[in-house]
Amino acid sequence: MATIKQVAERAGVSVATVSRVLNDNGYVQLDTRKKVEEAIDQLGYIPNEVARSLYKKESRFIGLLLPDITNPFFPEMARGVEDELQEEGFYLLFGNSDESLERELKYIQTFVQNNVVGLISATNLADKANYDNLPIPTVFLDRGSQSEYSVYSDGVEGGRIAASEMIKRGSRKITVLKGPAHVMPVQERFQGTIEVLVQANVDFQVISLESLSFQEGMRRAYEIFEKFPETDGIIASNDTTATAILHEALSRGKSIPDEVQIIGFDDIQQSSLVFPSLSTIRQPIYDMGREAAKLLIKLIKKQAVEQPHIKLDVSYVNRNTTRKVK
Amino acid sequence: MATIKQVAERAGVSVATVSRVLNDNGYVQLDTRKKVEEAIDQLGYIPNEVARSLYKKESRFIGLLLPDITNPFFPEMARGVEDELQEEGFYLLFGNSDESLERELKYIQTFVQNNVVGLISATNLADKANYDNLPIPTVFLDRGSQSEYSVYSDGVEGGRIAASEMIKRGSRKITVLKGPAHVMPVQERFQGTIEVLVQANVDFQVISLESLSFQEGMRRAYEIFEKFPETDGIIASNDTTATAILHEALSRGKSIPDEVQIIGFDDIQQSSLVFPSLSTIRQPIYDMGREAAKLLIKLIKKQAVEQPHIKLDVSYVNRNTTRKVK
Repeated sequence: MATIKQVAERAGVSVATVSRVLNDNGYVQLDTRKKVEEAIDQLGYIPNEVARSLYKKESRFIGLLLPDITNPFFPEMARGVEDELQEEGFYLLFGNSDESLERELKYIQTFVQNNVVGLISATNLADKANYDNLPIPTVFLDRGSQSEYSVYSDGVEGGRIAASEMIKRGSRKITVLKGPAHVMPVQERFQGTIEVLVQANVDFQVISLESLSFQEGMRRAYEIFEKFPETDGIIASNDTTATAILHEALSRGKSIPDEVQIIGFDDIQQSSLVFPSLSTIRQPIYDMGREAAKLLIKLIKKQAVEQPHIKLDVSYVNRNTTRKVK
Repeated sequence: MATIKQVAERAGVSVATVSRVLNDNGYVQLDTRKKVEEAIDQLGYIPNEVARSLYKKESRFIGLLLPDITNPFFPEMARGVEDELQEEGFYLLFGNSDESLERELKYIQTFVQNNVVGLISATNLADKANYDNLPIPTVFLDRGSQSEYSVYSDGVEGGRIAASEMIKRGSRKITVLKGPAHVMPVQERFQGTIEVLVQANVDFQVISLESLSFQEGMRRAYEIFEKFPETDGIIASNDTTATAILHEALSRGKSIPDEVQIIGFDDIQQSSLVFPSLSTIRQPIYDMGREAAKLLIKLIKKQAVEQPHIKLDVSYVNRNTTRKVK
């Protein structure tokens, strides 16, 4: 790769002049600028962005913190963030917290140490001390509206829709899964579901989950069908636990959706690929990522922010684990 | 956040002395060093890594280029890369190429401009000109052994295993999907499959795919069952297309695995979640990511590399789209 010195030699100017052209700083005659730009083109010189970011006291990096990219909910969200950043000339530094406060803090420090200009956090920890007094703006993603800047989907309304669809399609003994207490969006959807079930005067029971994993779903599915063999509708906390319940139901020879209806939450990719395909409440996962990136870029550019909390709509996706309405 | 000046004031020394302590450069008296370190602790000062990386001419960033993180093959691979990097104190910059040469080149340039110290590329482009004359080491991931440094799994052997298992479990009219020509690992598995089928003297037909997507799988599944209604075994190019074929087979009322056996390739997470669960050839996706990161760190540290091409073993995963062997 060519050096700045080689560019200066080729253009017949000093290194300082090349630097002034690159940083658009200080007066440079038009024909001198042209010579420098030609030399840069000819030599394929790539200016060092680190030096420039120090000089300008800014970089083009944004940090993204996720619980775990192998959870199928997050790749689509990360992709939304990245597509928006890339169009705006920003780049993504990326870390998985594994829901460990220590790992999360280490990533935050590394991001700050490396002149990251903004942060998007989609971790679930209630303790926000890690984010206090950061010198850069932070947008919280998929965490409800409790933070200063946030992008999330309407979990309460999603929970309401799931319960209404379940009742409309004929279930009368409904099992509701309640996700872990520290995951705020999951609590919101639970709240919406309970609200509708209570109003509708149908029987229901609640099963609390310790996590949203497939394995936890399998364990609880066994419990549900043993304890409540008469249940005719299950509202899951997310698509992954819904899929686990679907498996357990099928392996017990239950007819889906005739004997038991199942509704998930999220609409991750695989939910249209299971058989029968999963009816669910769709969150606009990709759009949530994009909106968070948009909001963060506004904060970085110190532009006016009309909406510090962006709540996106959810919708019912009618597939084959729920009955048709007449 | 505290500044270096505040640290110097608190310790009663000059900024230059604090800098010498931070960079471990030049002589500092033991008790002075202690005073500086105490001030750093008390103020919670975080040194600026960008300034240090410029000073030391190195950073702790590694760039990872993927085709698309929302393809369920890649999150696990990215996670393997990240876990290894994190343990070694390196951090991940991340970009999706979308199989666009231009987008790929832009990311490579950005990585280099920002003093990234190494690159891992898992894109599929045959044209490697983008990687010529880079000033940093590059490891190619999941691309076969054609590059200088590479980590991949044994596609040829995987293709052989798929064909052998299919025959052993009784299929005699086999359909083989052939993935896109530019995706090298997919060609290798095809080659291994054909080798075994030819030797075994069974009937087979080949269907060429333009992509490895679910949609492409659905289109071709329709074609397969229309053109070759008598086929009793399908070897897919990857798990995603295998899942599409499974859906089409089930919706035509085919009994799986009694009438038709299906074998995928990859063993992505969702393959154990489809119903019936998918028999497949398992690539150690997470380990491939980890090994690539290990190899790259060796190159960055200029340590001896005994194995520039690391080929990992694949294995057969016996689930419910293949018959039991007596």
